[in-house]
Amino acid sequence: MSTDCSQAVLPAPLCGEPYLLTPGPLTTSHEVKKAMLRDWGSWDDDFRAMTAQLRRELLALVGPGGEAYDCVPVQGSGTFAVEAMLGSFLPRDGKALVLINGAYGQRIAQTLDYLGRAYAVIDKGDYLPPRGEEVARALEVDPGITHVVVVHCETSSGILNPVREIADTVAAHGRKLLVDSMSAFGAVPLEVGEIAFEAMVSSANKCIEGVPGFGFVIARKSALEEAKGVSSSLSLDVHAQWAHMEKTGQWRFTPPTHVVAAFIEALRQHREEGGVAGRLARYTANRDTLVEGMRGLGFETLLSERWLSPIIVTFFTPADPAFGFADFYARMKAKGFIIYPGKLTVVESFRVGCIGRMDPPVMRKVVAAVAECLAEMGVSSAVPPTIALEERTKLVA
Amino acid sequence: MSTDCSQAVLPAPLCGEPYLLTPGPLTTSHEVKKAMLRDWGSWDDDFRAMTAQLRRELLALVGPGGEAYDCVPVQGSGTFAVEAMLGSFLPRDGKALVLINGAYGQRIAQTLDYLGRAYAVIDKGDYLPPRGEEVARALEVDPGITHVVVVHCETSSGILNPVREIADTVAAHGRKLLVDSMSAFGAVPLEVGEIAFEAMVSSANKCIEGVPGFGFVIARKSALEEAKGVSSSLSLDVHAQWAHMEKTGQWRFTPPTHVVAAFIEALRQHREEGGVAGRLARYTANRDTLVEGMRGLGFETLLSERWLSPIIVTFFTPADPAFGFADFYARMKAKGFIIYPGKLTVVESFRVGCIGRMDPPVMRKVVAAVAECLAEMGVSSAVPPTIALEERTKLVA
Ligand SMILES: Cc1ncc(COP(=O)(O)O)c(C=O)c1O
Ligand SMILES: Cc1ncc(COP(=O)(O)O)c(C=O)c1O
Repeated sequence: MSTDCSQAVLPAPLCGEPYLLTPGPLTTSHEVKKAMLRDWGSWDDDFRAMTAQLRRELLALVGPGGEAYDCVPVQGSGTFAVEAMLGSFLPRDGKALVLINGAYGQRIAQTLDYLGRAYAVIDKGDYLPPRGEEVARALEVDPGITHVVVVHCETSSGILNPVREIADTVAAHGRKLLVDSMSAFGAVPLEVGEIAFEAMVSSANKCIEGVPGFGFVIARKSALEEAKGVSSSLSLDVHAQWAHMEKTGQWRFTPPTHVVAAFIEALRQHREEGGVAGRLARYTANRDTLVEGMRGLGFETLLSERWLSPIIVTFFTPADPAFGFADFYARMKAKGFIIYPGKLTVVESFRVGCIGRMDPPVMRKVVAAVAECLAEMGVSSAVPPTIALEERTKLVA
Repeated sequence: MSTDCSQAVLPAPLCGEPYLLTPGPLTTSHEVKKAMLRDWGSWDDDFRAMTAQLRRELLALVGPGGEAYDCVPVQGSGTFAVEAMLGSFLPRDGKALVLINGAYGQRIAQTLDYLGRAYAVIDKGDYLPPRGEEVARALEVDPGITHVVVVHCETSSGILNPVREIADTVAAHGRKLLVDSMSAFGAVPLEVGEIAFEAMVSSANKCIEGVPGFGFVIARKSALEEAKGVSSSLSLDVHAQWAHMEKTGQWRFTPPTHVVAAFIEALRQHREEGGVAGRLARYTANRDTLVEGMRGLGFETLLSERWLSPIIVTFFTPADPAFGFADFYARMKAKGFIIYPGKLTVVESFRVGCIGRMDPPVMRKVVAAVAECLAEMGVSSAVPPTIALEERTKLVA
């Protein structure tokens, strides 16, 4: 499973700060942060050129056919961009089918509740993947559904949803697809030639490895035009942001100038690493190193290989009563690694991210640190409780 | 008009970058930017402590009586925070009276259009101040008005609106006051003991001298409680953000961690300078130095002393046909100063900001650079056209 970047050695974070094994904010390179050491006037030509470059380079990541699309950055966190996409592209009299298998799918439904838009759901629980066939049935049953909304990598479990299968189904039924690719875009391919989405969103502090402060929408130009007058939020009106940028080259409201500067440098490093393919190779090697090492310690992953993303991995908490997450978290932090709590509702779990400025040598240190923590805590076996493994058998590959 | 900080000398920006004589983004100190040179996990205790500190220190700026209020940061630009305030505190069956004398007052009305909330306006045009008496009349005439919305410093002209006079009127009529203090808070006093507002907003990249990426609301706790279920936006729901922060110490969605770190350092420098009073003294000295110098060159300000804010000053464009703004802007930039175009609809103007990491010696250099530009452009007199001066006589002190 290892790739040729498994021997790469990236510089460690400075001044003893911990690695962030979390899916954003994540560990960024020193050069990315150094790009924030000056101020820019947002009205000035120099900054307009940066905005144009950012939009152009992001758009290039969706591959051939991108001419029919445009990229619109949106201030705020990723959730703001998701809400902007839903509120701008789903007409007020439209209806969404939301595919849910975790916290971010649920958040999409919650956003639609706020926006007062009609929707149906396919809710698969904590992590089971929504499949093309069931989407097809739902679309056949309800001709009122205009849009399907799917989460690319459902970060709450780490599952990589079968977006292509779903996109094909949606297209075959003449509906439109909206993708929350927050944690996947830039490392997992999402090319318009393969996956004909109407619009997608991601944010600065995920696989492009920038710092948090804005998200972005990539949408068909036709969708951007049709979105005129649809949004019921001034700040989150994607059409208005797009129209203003096209006309003036500026963001409608003050952009996070330093975060944008950091992102430009992050895009340069992304290119230098070989773009989406290069990043995917490193993250995959990170994940493989992590999973192999953790399994060696007796840990079990929630997901089987088929569904594991190269973004973040959920491990079951050991059954051993000597293991406590708060204690484990603190010990890992003291060793220089920040990990993430789990989000499963049925069984206890924790998560370790594979994205950010890290490589396999770092992941080996993570595994070594986990082994030390177990020893310190007196945990003799990392094997999960039987209920966890039973839970897993629900997932047929 | 000069104060004792007129001789202070702050370090210049690094590597020849220009001073931003603009009301945000503005020139920040090197220490503020250096605080962004590391990554933080937003779920971690260290970052929760930073969030708590930020909220506590901002709240302290509203003076005695602040215990009845709380501070809620909101991701995005300042406009996002204004929209969050309006959408959360103005009940769906409420009605606002919006006091307009420039672009930011107009934007409040536009936001209410998006939100579908009822409102009336008092529109004074480009810069005339709304006065207590006319607000009183409007409130007497329309008992349906529940809230009055006012812009503290209307940055589009630089006028400092009579917020105290308006607050007294609003209180006397038993209505609630919402303040957009974006460009004033932190340098112009806004204490709850003096100005009994229901809620106010400002942002990171104004008078506290942080970098852009979030805004914040300071509101009565009673208002925060009543806001439950009011917002029709998930991202901009101030009640939900507040409730989540109170419960978990975390932002609901990924915070702009680096921008927050910069802001913590900016707050330290604000304190070190003597808080609101210290900052007001420096900005006032900046303004006085600028205005005196520009008048010496023949320029005229839009506003008379009574209404001039220490935030930004509007100057009339010279009548001399040799003067062109684009040319002037480029020449000023080449000399290291980024200025701002005007926003008046009737006469030509430009603006120079007094806020950010600058002091009177810098302002003297600004004036010297302006003089050089005029000479280079062959502008023999900076006197504005007669129509500009006629416009000004509308403003009775
Ligand atoms: C799939 C997905 N959607 C949405 C979000 C929300 O992004 P944010 O926390 O920046 O609001 C995340 C964050 O991790 C995510 O992974
Ligand atoms: C008074 C006022 N309100 C609102 C805003 C909008 O802030 P932002 O550009 O950060 O959205 C500004 C920006 O300068 C302002 O001065």
